[in-house]
Amino acid sequence: MRGLVLVAHGSRRAAANVEVAELTQRVALQAGARYEVVTHGFLEMAEPSIPDAIQQAVDAGATEVVVVPYFLSAGRHVTEDIPQQVRCKQADCPAVRMTIAPYLGIAAAIPDLLLQSAASIYS
Amino acid sequence: MRGLVLVAHGSRRAAANVEVAELTQRVALQAGARYEVVTHGFLEMAEPSIPDAIQQAVDAGATEVVVVPYFLSAGRHVTEDIPQQVRCKQADCPAVRMTIAPYLGIAAAIPDLLLQSAASIYS
Repeated sequence: MRGLVLVAHGSRRAAANVEVAELTQRVALQAGARYEVVTHGFLEMAEPSIPDAIQQAVDAGATEVVVVPYFLSAGRHVTEDIPQQVRCKQADCPAVRMTIAPYLGIAAAIPDLLLQSAASIYS
Repeated sequence: MRGLVLVAHGSRRAAANVEVAELTQRVALQAGARYEVVTHGFLEMAEPSIPDAIQQAVDAGATEVVVVPYFLSAGRHVTEDIPQQVRCKQADCPAVRMTIAPYLGIAAAIPDLLLQSAASIYS
């Protein structure tokens, strides 16, 4: 059973964290049968933490968890902090297969999305 | 003549700013004839500034400039700081039509991109 954990930075602004929770609901809706459970966690400044978000997926029955970093650039958070937290959680749950997917900013479709955003002002 | 100005936060890490410059090149390539000039600017911590990036587009002949915020959430940077800098530049260049497009994070395609990223670990 597959789970997806969306990981965002976390903000002091509650509204930004709510945006991530709402995005997670949209991901869950679009995931359909591909992921039985979709949760979200924050690296810092907000709850739930990344390990807690993974635990939520495991509690819901996930035996495979893919962590997707909602980040635009490959800074230390993406290259070190998230992997470190996932490794730690993996050590706690050796029976669950945990994998980190590429961060959002590296997606090949980003230039097209930016052009669509620009084009939307004319509509 | 249309120009597109991609606006990112800016980072202390040079590599993150280089990522934005490279993304700008990909946007320019994909823009084709839709935008004659594509530049990028940073809100803080890196150069060029947003006004300088708009000026580069104007110097290249742009009479319409669309500013696209490369941001994931509608924080103060998106709702106040970027509009303030664009308004200021607009006052300097009344003959150029400047518009701010929706920020990246609000794009309807984001959930699909996150699911594609998650799926890529199986390929």
